[in-house]
Amino acid sequence: MNIAIVGLGIIGGSYCKALKAHTPHYVIGINRTPEVAEQALAQGAIDEIGTPEALGKADVIFLCMYPQACADFLKENGQYIRKDAIVTDAAGIKRALCPQLKEIADGFGFTYVGSHPMAGKEKNGFSASDENLFMGASFIITPCGAPHTAVNALSGLALEIGFGTIKITTPEEHDRMIAFTSQLPHILACAYVLSPCCPKHKGFSAGSYRDVSRVANINAKLWTELFLENQEPLVAELEVLNENLTNIFQAVKNEDKEALFALLERGHQVKQALGE
Amino acid sequence: MNIAIVGLGIIGGSYCKALKAHTPHYVIGINRTPEVAEQALAQGAIDEIGTPEALGKADVIFLCMYPQACADFLKENGQYIRKDAIVTDAAGIKRALCPQLKEIADGFGFTYVGSHPMAGKEKNGFSASDENLFMGASFIITPCGAPHTAVNALSGLALEIGFGTIKITTPEEHDRMIAFTSQLPHILACAYVLSPCCPKHKGFSAGSYRDVSRVANINAKLWTELFLENQEPLVAELEVLNENLTNIFQAVKNEDKEALFALLERGHQVKQALGE
Repeated sequence: MNIAIVGLGIIGGSYCKALKAHTPHYVIGINRTPEVAEQALAQGAIDEIGTPEALGKADVIFLCMYPQACADFLKENGQYIRKDAIVTDAAGIKRALCPQLKEIADGFGFTYVGSHPMAGKEKNGFSASDENLFMGASFIITPCGAPHTAVNALSGLALEIGFGTIKITTPEEHDRMIAFTSQLPHILACAYVLSPCCPKHKGFSAGSYRDVSRVANINAKLWTELFLENQEPLVAELEVLNENLTNIFQAVKNEDKEALFALLERGHQVKQALGE
Repeated sequence: MNIAIVGLGIIGGSYCKALKAHTPHYVIGINRTPEVAEQALAQGAIDEIGTPEALGKADVIFLCMYPQACADFLKENGQYIRKDAIVTDAAGIKRALCPQLKEIADGFGFTYVGSHPMAGKEKNGFSASDENLFMGASFIITPCGAPHTAVNALSGLALEIGFGTIKITTPEEHDRMIAFTSQLPHILACAYVLSPCCPKHKGFSAGSYRDVSRVANINAKLWTELFLENQEPLVAELEVLNENLTNIFQAVKNEDKEALFALLERGHQVKQALGE
């Protein structure tokens, strides 16, 4: 197949590298900044630098830009896409984006299937991309009414790329779960490192500091967009967290040993039940 | 040297294994439950199973029990300890414990030096111990008035064991920093996994879920003691966290894009400045 990757950041770049490393497919890279596409070509991460017109050659197109930029790009360049092509995105929010992309796809007559690769790093850009970024990770698909054949084709391609799990869901469930699994840890990490103790942590810290603070090295522009586009589920999760944190806080403050033990033990039980 | 390790849990067990693997010292293991000591001997993690009377042979003694249990043990068995021996502990809190241990040591005439190995796992017990647990980690020493020679002897032993950094500080600074670097991440992890979304996370999660939730698999009894014995610095850190979290929460709730971006960008800057 001919696969076009639009946007060669960490996610798009990793798709290119994984496709070249683990599949026989032909990879067309499209990027706003030409230097990055040239670098990708020089490194063998893509077979060809594409212009939007080159989308006409693609069987599958991955849009790997900021959420709103995906919609803008597709609206402008949908005219070049074949009617038998499958277009997907890689955005971390789905309710706000999938209906827009589906409407554009329906207008032009090609198929849109939403997806979200559950992998990332606390770094950005093509230089952080990695052929093994998706190895064993979960590939979430939000079909949004796409035919089974298209969903199956995309699933198959994801498994070829190295994903370990395919999760098919709705944009609503995706956004609710992502608020918890991904957005909340990023907010926690940022709030955590704003303590005046943080710059002095060296020599006093170990794995638990490292892990909770890791994703504070955030792409603030991207995550501001992701948080605000997922406001409702995120606010709900922040309220749940705030309540649980307050309960622990109060138990410490009141020296309520039994309440504190019970709350910590519940945390322990949740992880034990998950086998983690 | 003859080194006695009292308490063969994850930390004590790892001291034994690291001493046997990386140093020529003779290791005496003392444990309340005889089965664990027998297992350690069978695995070659110790050279000898000791009774408290065997403490008389030891040049250095590591107390690796729950904080208050260390004080009780030392009071009861200090009579067996040589006056030229160095006794240290491994407890995660220092203000509440060091003065007690120092007083007991002064009473018997041997030397006490506080220490805290900055390493651990989300598992407990001898079965979780590991000869490389301390490799490259920080070894915090709270001298509490001990002579330089004793501090230097303990530092040297820590480096032999595999620690990468020696940090010498006061019990007060230790407890203030540990509230941030270690206690807060454990509280955050527990509060986080209490969301009703947590048991359903599989397929929707990746590294950020894994990292922030890791230490929620907590030893609730031990950490209840550690939190309450460090109440004042911990409450101060919880207040700082609560304020920063509330600021982000409000920015999301009010769709205040600029404020949200500014808060996330500050988190990013802190980590960037630390080179993390």
